Amino acid sequence: MYNRGMNQQFEKKELKKKSENLSDWYTDVILKAEENAYFPLFIPYSLLQKEKEHVEGFSPQLALVTIGGGEKLKDPLVVRPTSETIMYFMYAKWIHSWRDLPMLINQWNNVIRWEKRTYLFLRTTEFLWQEGHTAHATEKEDMDMVLSALEWYRQIHEDYLAVPVVCGVKSETEKFAGAKRTYTIEALMPDGKALQAATSHNLGQNFSKVFDIKFQTKDGKTDYVWQTSWGLTTRVLGGLFLTHGDDNGIILPPKIAPIQMIIMPIRKKDGDAKMLLTRCEELRETLTNSGIRVKVDTREEPSVGRRFNEWEVKGVPIRLEIGERELAADTVVLARRDTGEKVTIARKEIITTVQKLLNDIQKSLFDKAKKFRDDNTRDAATYDEFKKIMNTTRGFIRALWCEDAACEATIKEETKASTRCLPMDAKEEKATCVHCGKPATHRWFFAQSY
Amino acid sequence: MYNRGMNQQFEKKELKKKSENLSDWYTDVILKAEENAYFPLFIPYSLLQKEKEHVEGFSPQLALVTIGGGEKLKDPLVVRPTSETIMYFMYAKWIHSWRDLPMLINQWNNVIRWEKRTYLFLRTTEFLWQEGHTAHATEKEDMDMVLSALEWYRQIHEDYLAVPVVCGVKSETEKFAGAKRTYTIEALMPDGKALQAATSHNLGQNFSKVFDIKFQTKDGKTDYVWQTSWGLTTRVLGGLFLTHGDDNGIILPPKIAPIQMIIMPIRKKDGDAKMLLTRCEELRETLTNSGIRVKVDTREEPSVGRRFNEWEVKGVPIRLEIGERELAADTVVLARRDTGEKVTIARKEIITTVQKLLNDIQKSLFDKAKKFRDDNTRDAATYDEFKKIMNTTRGFIRALWCEDAACEATIKEETKASTRCLPMDAKEEKATCVHCGKPATHRWFFAQSY
Repeated sequence: MYNRGMNQQFEKKELKKKSENLSDWYTDVILKAEENAYFPLFIPYSLLQKEKEHVEGFSPQLALVTIGGGEKLKDPLVVRPTSETIMYFMYAKWIHSWRDLPMLINQWNNVIRWEKRTYLFLRTTEFLWQEGHTAHATEKEDMDMVLSALEWYRQIHEDYLAVPVVCGVKSETEKFAGAKRTYTIEALMPDGKALQAATSHNLGQNFSKVFDIKFQTKDGKTDYVWQTSWGLTTRVLGGLFLTHGDDNGIILPPKIAPIQMIIMPIRKKDGDAKMLLTRCEELRETLTNSGIRVKVDTREEPSVGRRFNEWEVKGVPIRLEIGERELAADTVVLARRDTGEKVTIARKEIITTVQKLLNDIQKSLFDKAKKFRDDNTRDAATYDEFKKIMNTTRGFIRALWCEDAACEATIKEETKASTRCLPMDAKEEKATCVHCGKPATHRWFFAQSY
Repeated sequence: MYNRGMNQQFEKKELKKKSENLSDWYTDVILKAEENAYFPLFIPYSLLQKEKEHVEGFSPQLALVTIGGGEKLKDPLVVRPTSETIMYFMYAKWIHSWRDLPMLINQWNNVIRWEKRTYLFLRTTEFLWQEGHTAHATEKEDMDMVLSALEWYRQIHEDYLAVPVVCGVKSETEKFAGAKRTYTIEALMPDGKALQAATSHNLGQNFSKVFDIKFQTKDGKTDYVWQTSWGLTTRVLGGLFLTHGDDNGIILPPKIAPIQMIIMPIRKKDGDAKMLLTRCEELRETLTNSGIRVKVDTREEPSVGRRFNEWEVKGVPIRLEIGERELAADTVVLARRDTGEKVTIARKEIITTVQKLLNDIQKSLFDKAKKFRDDNTRDAATYDEFKKIMNTTRGFIRALWCEDAACEATIKEETKASTRCLPMDAKEEKATCVHCGKPATHRWFFAQSY
């Protein structure tokens, strides 16, 4: 999806000869062949300090390498909390002309942000993510990129993970350290707490100015590039599990389930296992050929009941049961993971039934989560009402807010609820702040959060 | 390919209720659902110290995190140089019975081994790799796994990267720190230096004894597991570029080239670009449908000559040229990246011709590299001969060696050549060491190395 978009000059005469100096040739050729990007884990501390807000924001969460190869380092190395600084240091060397733009680089990697209290997937000192970093010639292109990334994240959540989200803009306090503006998607968890599911940042020219990423425009002038960065982390797995799971384990939406259906032959002690297993294998093949991800559980232990539980815990959307009775009647039993419902169907109807069932489960998981989210999104007209909601049901609160950071801090201190975002579709109003009574123009989303 | 192979008990009653305590339910369910493995980047220093040889081997190359979240750490964290210690600490908790075996885990990640002098891809402080870590019930299964991994690596190199390798066993000095035995594949670079391309380690019970990874055998006894670990790194890319590249850039073997053929429309200034581009698009579609990875270079700048050079530097195996003359004659021109040879063929013959050409290039690259390797593999009957080879042509030397570490060290000091491996197919002889004259039973491979 992403190319380096580089437009370097390739002059044959610049290349060293392999036969004359293998070492020079090697370095030369690799740099010119432009392999895909992977930036280093370690960032010199001095580089991180270049963007003032950025370093201030990340300082409390840094892990510092002070000893390397047995020696104390003069300039400590930061284990990357995010890669803006190390990547943009290179962007300044790579970008010269409008022809080099847009530069679109994405990398999948691990990052470190020190956490005192960790929580599986949701708050961890190390996490895995993708981070996209782009540079553009114009402010408009820049903004289009920010919103495209946000829309991809919304689609991943709503269309694949079946997790409904609110799209919006972060407040000045809550935005990414160094960004001009941060866009976010926010999900609501079953305990009424919000989860910031992914963010897309409009960096404007903040970083390009401190890293000196300049380019020659089409009409011969010089300008700083406009930049974006955006990331999606392993945190989404936590949100997915919390949203759909039940007392029997996690529930995976069919679209992303690695196994969509588990086939369970139910053997009798003295029954004809061979015929049963042959039938299961036929079913597996038929379903696989229709693009359904299927596995047959042919194990003889633990007991069938235990194995049912095991696949339920793992969240496999459909369980197919087949025993001697079904074999004789040429039927199969299908059990839904999300509702527990069981149906017996004729074997010849299996493909259409399973496809329909998978669609139903996908839709039903989303609808259920959306209903919960909508039921738990409340308008608070007064601060008393606001506090009452946060003391009881929690969930999202929609409330008019003056956009003043001090007011935001007080609300957070008193209710533990922070601003989550200003929704993209919020309408302008002429009103007053729910807390301080000063003029307010928009209803923001508030919630306690992970 | 790899499953956790776990066989934990899934008792419904053990699961917490989601409605009662979301937080407990969440932790519980995630642990029971057994997501795929990813082990942490940071390893407590105390954990690394458990296996004596292991920590001694890696100590000079460690990066230490001493400050985290603004505070000095009591137990410094090692940025993983390899993951044996952190993984096996968990294996001890997961493995209890022969039913839990084999445990087969592979992870793709980044590791850090401090280097004073770095060299693109070949010697870097950070590198990317996959590391496989397995545990088995018997010594035989363990050995089978070690050799299977080695064979995968040989196939990757010879059948895909077209890089011939020698498979063998490392000497005691050169083996992995903590292993019982290390198996290796060794390639020969154009400057006559060897490259250790990948390794597979038989860990025996060395780690299981210090990490206390015990299991109950089928007959009710208790034993330590038998373990293997094996890795393939980004270093292979360096070996690939060095082996096949020429004065015009890198050359990618067709089987692994992301673009196997670049289609270059050669536009005349006032020619009919539209028809030409339509034809190129048709060709792209036809070839893509036959499973060939093709791209059309529709750019208008830089010049055609520059763009030819650009694709040559990047190593694309075949260039297809088509201009007005070819359009009129219903032909295309194909140019081979490896030999520079050009042929004009009828358009209707394109699929069979390109498929044959790709196979030819793949084979030819391997044959050329193998001939170079064979031509540069020499028997040294005397130490004088040994020294003379290392002072002139270099390359692999096959020589009788006593297997004494002190003798090996002297040879290395005097000739810069280290033992590379004892080839798998080496025959037993009754002879004397090429250097010290003591009894020697096998011919080892020696070379200077990266």
